[in-house]
Amino acid sequence: MDDVVVNILKKVELNNPVLVVGLPGLGNVAKLAADYLKEAINATKFATIYSKYFPPQVYVGDDGTIRMVSNDLYSYKAKKDGQRDIIILVGDYQGLSPEGQYELTDRVLQLAEKMGVKEVFTLAGFAQGHLVENPRVLGAATSKDRVEMMKKLGVVFSKNEPGSGLIGASGLFLGIGQLYAMESVCLMGETSGYFVDPRSAEAVLRILMSVLSLEFDLSDLEAKAHEIDKIASRLRETETKLAPPQPEITQTKEDLGYIG
Amino acid sequence: MDDVVVNILKKVELNNPVLVVGLPGLGNVAKLAADYLKEAINATKFATIYSKYFPPQVYVGDDGTIRMVSNDLYSYKAKKDGQRDIIILVGDYQGLSPEGQYELTDRVLQLAEKMGVKEVFTLAGFAQGHLVENPRVLGAATSKDRVEMMKKLGVVFSKNEPGSGLIGASGLFLGIGQLYAMESVCLMGETSGYFVDPRSAEAVLRILMSVLSLEFDLSDLEAKAHEIDKIASRLRETETKLAPPQPEITQTKEDLGYIG
Amino acid sequence: MDDVVVNILKKVELNNPVLVVGLPGLGNVAKLAADYLKEAINATKFATIYSKYFPPQVYVGDDGTIRMVSNDLYSYKAKKDGQRDIIILVGDYQGLSPEGQYELTDRVLQLAEKMGVKEVFTLAGFAQGHLVENPRVLGAATSKDRVEMMKKLGVVFSKNEPGSGLIGASGLFLGIGQLYAMESVCLMGETSGYFVDPRSAEAVLRILMSVLSLEFDLSDLEAKAHEIDKIASRLRETETKLAPPQPEITQTKEDLGYIG
Amino acid sequence: MDDVVVNILKKVELNNPVLVVGLPGLGNVAKLAADYLKEAINATKFATIYSKYFPPQVYVGDDGTIRMVSNDLYSYKAKKDGQRDIIILVGDYQGLSPEGQYELTDRVLQLAEKMGVKEVFTLAGFAQGHLVENPRVLGAATSKDRVEMMKKLGVVFSKNEPGSGLIGASGLFLGIGQLYAMESVCLMGETSGYFVDPRSAEAVLRILMSVLSLEFDLSDLEAKAHEIDKIASRLRETETKLAPPQPEITQTKEDLGYIG
Repeated sequence: MDDVVVNILKKVELNNPVLVVGLPGLGNVAKLAADYLKEAINATKFATIYSKYFPPQVYVGDDGTIRMVSNDLYSYKAKKDGQRDIIILVGDYQGLSPEGQYELTDRVLQLAEKMGVKEVFTLAGFAQGHLVENPRVLGAATSKDRVEMMKKLGVVFSKNEPGSGLIGASGLFLGIGQLYAMESVCLMGETSGYFVDPRSAEAVLRILMSVLSLEFDLSDLEAKAHEIDKIASRLRETETKLAPPQPEITQTKEDLGYIG
Repeated sequence: MDDVVVNILKKVELNNPVLVVGLPGLGNVAKLAADYLKEAINATKFATIYSKYFPPQVYVGDDGTIRMVSNDLYSYKAKKDGQRDIIILVGDYQGLSPEGQYELTDRVLQLAEKMGVKEVFTLAGFAQGHLVENPRVLGAATSKDRVEMMKKLGVVFSKNEPGSGLIGASGLFLGIGQLYAMESVCLMGETSGYFVDPRSAEAVLRILMSVLSLEFDLSDLEAKAHEIDKIASRLRETETKLAPPQPEITQTKEDLGYIG
Repeated sequence: MDDVVVNILKKVELNNPVLVVGLPGLGNVAKLAADYLKEAINATKFATIYSKYFPPQVYVGDDGTIRMVSNDLYSYKAKKDGQRDIIILVGDYQGLSPEGQYELTDRVLQLAEKMGVKEVFTLAGFAQGHLVENPRVLGAATSKDRVEMMKKLGVVFSKNEPGSGLIGASGLFLGIGQLYAMESVCLMGETSGYFVDPRSAEAVLRILMSVLSLEFDLSDLEAKAHEIDKIASRLRETETKLAPPQPEITQTKEDLGYIG
Repeated sequence: MDDVVVNILKKVELNNPVLVVGLPGLGNVAKLAADYLKEAINATKFATIYSKYFPPQVYVGDDGTIRMVSNDLYSYKAKKDGQRDIIILVGDYQGLSPEGQYELTDRVLQLAEKMGVKEVFTLAGFAQGHLVENPRVLGAATSKDRVEMMKKLGVVFSKNEPGSGLIGASGLFLGIGQLYAMESVCLMGETSGYFVDPRSAEAVLRILMSVLSLEFDLSDLEAKAHEIDKIASRLRETETKLAPPQPEITQTKEDLGYIG
């Protein structure tokens, strides 16, 4: 068995597509955003990725049928002027080990390059360790040009945020992407780090809509954000002090699976 | 040395065999059941599997001779109408690492495919965290057809059981099996998670007897179940409260070796 | 760099040699015995083994020069009738990971096979968890014939000792050796598990001398044993109860480096 | 993706160059010294090394642009008689796993050999567990000749320092270097193990200047040392007893990333 198995389900022809990466991580921001995006724009699944670098696990659906842990690729064809073709990478897990992170990222980028990708957007959560009412979207990019472009769209570039850099797929797609001569941006939604954070995902999606000239309804995500708000405020009432927060973005091997 | 070494001890010709997988896991349910099955139907060992993914360990028998940690394959030829040829996978360990789990499962399925296997049954324990008097057999399958077939035989398909899916070989044989176009079912005997559980193994075997039109005596397993019951009731007398149970089916890497 | 690098320092022709394996483990019994043996019979180093499966470490000698962590092979030519040619494997470490254990053992056995080895003796410590005045030498072997031969020489074969089998190189050389059609015996000196144990090493060497028709002085080892005895008895005076002993031979991955 | 990717940025012709290795470790002594050296002699970056054995991480600069975790090679051409061409290896991390340590060291030595390297100097910190006013530079070498040469330059060779040898790249370059017939020296600056230690780095650099007939200003490093001194003395005032120190040079796998 290959270390990474890419099952192409459907042949897809795209024109200069942009790759959007949203895998599980802090506050589940990236996964929430990318899963929402693929539904909202009705993207088509065209490939499934299995790997030894994922846990040896299958999920059982409500009807009793299983599916194996995977990452999945979706495609979207531009529908009007100003839009671009899009590939979206979503999934259950990031690679469990450093080696797995590098291998999986590289394998997706190989495929992306063949499909004409020259630009990547990765999504991530940026944990502040305290509740964030109006999450900013922080950025990191492969060039100053991209930094300037993103600033104009409201993305915040802030010294020492993130201090120790980006760990996991959201950073690695930028770094290895450079070896493929791809230009990339990471969009990090601020989040407390205590809860899954649909509000932060919403903030990230607003930037992405603007970047990709997409328009879609965010009300479902807002509804989820309200639910989480209620849970959070109830918790604040009962506990004056929260338990110590998760570290923002740390460098331990153990955290890799959980960091966007 | 290859990562997985398959030693064929005996050439075997089988007709459309079904593969039954029973490796160590929760409550040792799967191993108890599969080991009992191979004895009860007098199956023949035809292959031994050694691997770097197992612990570097040998067992010492009562006569002082050793055997290396392994998985083993047994075969059974149908003896009457309605029966099918069977391959049984039993063993000392599951693969220690995620990579090992994927590799070992894939390697057995490669061999199984060559031998004509199109259908797999994996056995497992499903830990409830409390004592279970009359263990149900829960199911998961690769298709709705199989789900329906199993329901008719008394297998329970219950939403959110198991919540986080199946971890280890019992799930992976279903998932990777799909890449080989095999139809599979996982049969999970409810168990407390505190003890080895022959009663749960018995419940699983009753389903399997019915699926495979086999008939054999279960009294040895019942005797073992009574022994365990006595130990359990003595424990309940002395302790009003049990120690916190093992988690049901969790996702940590550390548990892989112990989850069916 | 290969996973295992075997540097042949000197070409050696041996006649039907027996391989003796003494690597670090419980009570350091095996290493003490094998290091003593190679000095006592003035064996010649003919190969050095480096590997990624050892720690990335060099030792610094008293003169300030370094040597890299290794295993080493020594040869001995029979000097009188009844003796046999001998290869001795000694070293600083066993493989750090299960994979490393399998790979290193297999790699040495490959070389041993080429040199005509058909028989292996591995040395080990067997931790009892309490002080042992007169350590027995326990055995395990690849065949009943060997068991009987060893019994005649005073080796004890005792049910459930060791209960969970042999972990690490001392067992794996027997197990993988079977795949090379080699006959092997493991000689385990009883030891407390608290101290390095020259007395146990001495007991093992006495058996080995008898097996291999060797004769050499053991007084240096006896002297060391007396020193350890003094330390132990002083400890017993000051503490009526010892700290909980190391487990005998356990199955955890973490222990692999330390178990003979 | 290869396990280790060496990106040559610039073709460099050097004459019998010496390799200097300064990677992160105890007190950050080696990294501080090597980074300072490359700036001070205005060395030119000619290669970047990426690897799966590093963490899956990118750094974000003050301008918002990223760079992937790497090791880097710099070159220096001799500018006057008595000087030699130099290659300097610096970087963000050592390999995370033992295997990574071996692979990365071997890969750099392969390249170094092609470029004509026959001599290596590795830098390291040597943790004493207490504050050190005037750090000595301890040494280890591949031959007695080198030991004598270094003694003349003030390097201290002291029995049992370091007791358990050198762990990580600073030792492995010496050990694997021997397989390439390279002569090497490790220069270890004494350090407390509590702080990053520019004073120790300075002591190491003074030896290196003398060895390589280099001359450059060390005042920036001295300034940093004064800052650290202030922090240390303030700490001593507030706490009479320091927390237990880091172990000097230990052998656990977990420490590999941090030991020079």
